[in-house]
Amino acid sequence: MNYYDLILKKRDGLKMSRDEIEYVVKGISDGSMPDYQVAAWAMAVYFRGMDSEETTWLAVAMANSGEQMDLSAVKGITVDKHSTGGVGDKTTLVAIPIAAAAGVPVAKMSGRGLGHTGGTIDKFESIPGFQVERSYAEFIRQVNRVKAAVISQSGNLVPADKRLYALRDLTATVDSIPLIASSIMSKKLASGAAAIVLDVKVGQGAFMKDLPSARALAELMVAIGTGAGRKMVAVLTDMEQPLGNMVGNALEVREAMDTLRGQGPRDLKELSLHLAAEMILLGEKAGTFEAAMSQAVDMLSSGAAADKLRQMVAWQGGSWDEEKPAYGLPEADCKQEVYASESGFVQGIDAFAIGRAAMYLGAGRESLSDVIDHAVGVELLKKRGDRVDKGEPLAIMHYNRSERMNTARELITQAFQLGSSALPPIPLILDVIRGA
Amino acid sequence: MNYYDLILKKRDGLKMSRDEIEYVVKGISDGSMPDYQVAAWAMAVYFRGMDSEETTWLAVAMANSGEQMDLSAVKGITVDKHSTGGVGDKTTLVAIPIAAAAGVPVAKMSGRGLGHTGGTIDKFESIPGFQVERSYAEFIRQVNRVKAAVISQSGNLVPADKRLYALRDLTATVDSIPLIASSIMSKKLASGAAAIVLDVKVGQGAFMKDLPSARALAELMVAIGTGAGRKMVAVLTDMEQPLGNMVGNALEVREAMDTLRGQGPRDLKELSLHLAAEMILLGEKAGTFEAAMSQAVDMLSSGAAADKLRQMVAWQGGSWDEEKPAYGLPEADCKQEVYASESGFVQGIDAFAIGRAAMYLGAGRESLSDVIDHAVGVELLKKRGDRVDKGEPLAIMHYNRSERMNTARELITQAFQLGSSALPPIPLILDVIRGA
Repeated sequence: MNYYDLILKKRDGLKMSRDEIEYVVKGISDGSMPDYQVAAWAMAVYFRGMDSEETTWLAVAMANSGEQMDLSAVKGITVDKHSTGGVGDKTTLVAIPIAAAAGVPVAKMSGRGLGHTGGTIDKFESIPGFQVERSYAEFIRQVNRVKAAVISQSGNLVPADKRLYALRDLTATVDSIPLIASSIMSKKLASGAAAIVLDVKVGQGAFMKDLPSARALAELMVAIGTGAGRKMVAVLTDMEQPLGNMVGNALEVREAMDTLRGQGPRDLKELSLHLAAEMILLGEKAGTFEAAMSQAVDMLSSGAAADKLRQMVAWQGGSWDEEKPAYGLPEADCKQEVYASESGFVQGIDAFAIGRAAMYLGAGRESLSDVIDHAVGVELLKKRGDRVDKGEPLAIMHYNRSERMNTARELITQAFQLGSSALPPIPLILDVIRGA
Repeated sequence: MNYYDLILKKRDGLKMSRDEIEYVVKGISDGSMPDYQVAAWAMAVYFRGMDSEETTWLAVAMANSGEQMDLSAVKGITVDKHSTGGVGDKTTLVAIPIAAAAGVPVAKMSGRGLGHTGGTIDKFESIPGFQVERSYAEFIRQVNRVKAAVISQSGNLVPADKRLYALRDLTATVDSIPLIASSIMSKKLASGAAAIVLDVKVGQGAFMKDLPSARALAELMVAIGTGAGRKMVAVLTDMEQPLGNMVGNALEVREAMDTLRGQGPRDLKELSLHLAAEMILLGEKAGTFEAAMSQAVDMLSSGAAADKLRQMVAWQGGSWDEEKPAYGLPEADCKQEVYASESGFVQGIDAFAIGRAAMYLGAGRESLSDVIDHAVGVELLKKRGDRVDKGEPLAIMHYNRSERMNTARELITQAFQLGSSALPPIPLILDVIRGA
């Protein structure tokens, strides 16, 4: 076997064998496959695709390329939850406490974000004192005692994916559905959970712009997980506008806690409950989706889920003060409203543009070495379907430095698509794909 | 402009601009475009292709990436002749003397061969004493006085093509018609001739296996040359069997001289005359193809072409003795016949297999560091259409070392496709594509 012949095989549209995929992954991890051959192979995959078996073999081989989290010491069926990335998506901070309150053990390894806004780890780190680096023993103990813990991804998880992704990022081979699916799933498999709930975002603000491609990605990821012996479900959800009203790390934590206290925005509450119910179902704390949903609603309305988040934050060293405005989380020094330049009904809000605006204000990273300002971000005052009068505020920018405020304002103004007619509501949850 | 966007553009099937192609070529020559981006771009070109304009821009930019031969001191219209590579193809050694004898100046830079058998330079080097390294002044002087000179390619010709080709060779992106066309033509343009006659081989023994792809390659090369201001013609010729009877360096030189002396095989004579006539026509030593062909035939039959080769060899330090057997060229110590294992009519001879057999006997290079044995090769005793009886010799192996003789014999035996019926002759010259 040699790399040249494997590039040729994929270039000519043939199916690779499991051995061949493993040979490529080994070459990617140990460096024996040179950059240019990895790049050519990735471009051939971009054009020729891979079927569900090839993609599963790739994901499993990448998961096996480095360390893997051993969750066998956790009691019960460990459930992970993963989102393909949306703007204002803080469902992890709401759904995990709900599921954990229902008894589902959630041992989550997460990454820092690159792009629009922070990742889950960045959001938790906006809570003063919150520790994301924990020893293995502490992590397992917390999961068994609290049912929920979130730590930062270990250094040597999926080295093959790290190298492949870095090359894809430089060679215009990122947007290949089998490569995306195997990259995400390799990390999920290595993270060790027995069951995985995927939130696949669809729309202009997401990686997958339309339902067919999102469904293809979701089905492939469910097939990979099922093939690797995990319980799987994927929920396809709308990202034609940001989720909730807050975009930016501390602002999102605040909104998550608001939601757990019964005061959050409707869309965030709806999606978080749905994802938590899927977690409860996969975690076998309920026999049907309806029973799982009923438990999720109970955990939320009883305050048990809010207590669970408080407990989780306390165990990881975080402190906040629910009596204070903004719960004592970091707040930006300056706020400025963004006004509507015309009247109309909001048809949609370009989530990607809102994300970029938040990034320009300091909430996200353009490169991995950038330091995030946890306090800043964008607060939306209007959502899709709302009526807006000319001169009325659409959003509030929370910021500390004014350099790129004008760019951010411009992006926010343009993100709001106004029209003359009220729109019928679009469902938030578009489809659910369950593993066999 | 950046490399990522240009890979993306080609990946998405868009046409690159001249500036963009030049930017890529600059990045390939000066090393600022990393290997993995060159490889990804080449694979995108493999899948998406390039139109005739893009291919011309690529060839011209690569030709401009290094030194270029200045032939302005040569009197008359300099004509070059190039073959895309066949087995037993010694037409350069026959056609150049014919054209030169008709007064056409031929200043040829040629390469050493990689693969089956040697390149033109290797063939000339099998003549004892023949020098292929000449100063620029000597080269120009010889072309003006003798009308023909052949030298080895300079070190810094088309550096962009050298790097791109090396990467294509490792990433399964060699067989892309626009990349082949621009690679060949970049070298021809840099070689400086005002007119170029291309011999595009078609068949199992050639790079282009079928007439449509060979025609596409030929049309693209003619378009590139015409676009770059050169006079162009491409002749499509059959390579379903080796050309002539001899395969191997000194053996081919001998057969070329035989042909110039009126004793060569019919197919070699026919093709050499045709190519020489095209050179005479482009060199404006005749007004029509018929007049050019008539001159070519005269030069051959009068012995003027044979004298021209003698003169050329003498000017470049070579010596042979036409009184001696094999003209005093190197001869192999051992000969062994290969016998037919059944009776029948020869339907075809796999030129690729014959080429590999010759290479195994030492006539070619598997890697550029291999040393060629000029004396060895394969002598075909039967050609397509001939009747063969079981046990009759098909070919003679000329060899010095017996290690791989059995492999060579096997290849030769299998190369001969025998059938029960005589075949109608297939034309040798399949098509001619002339520049505008």
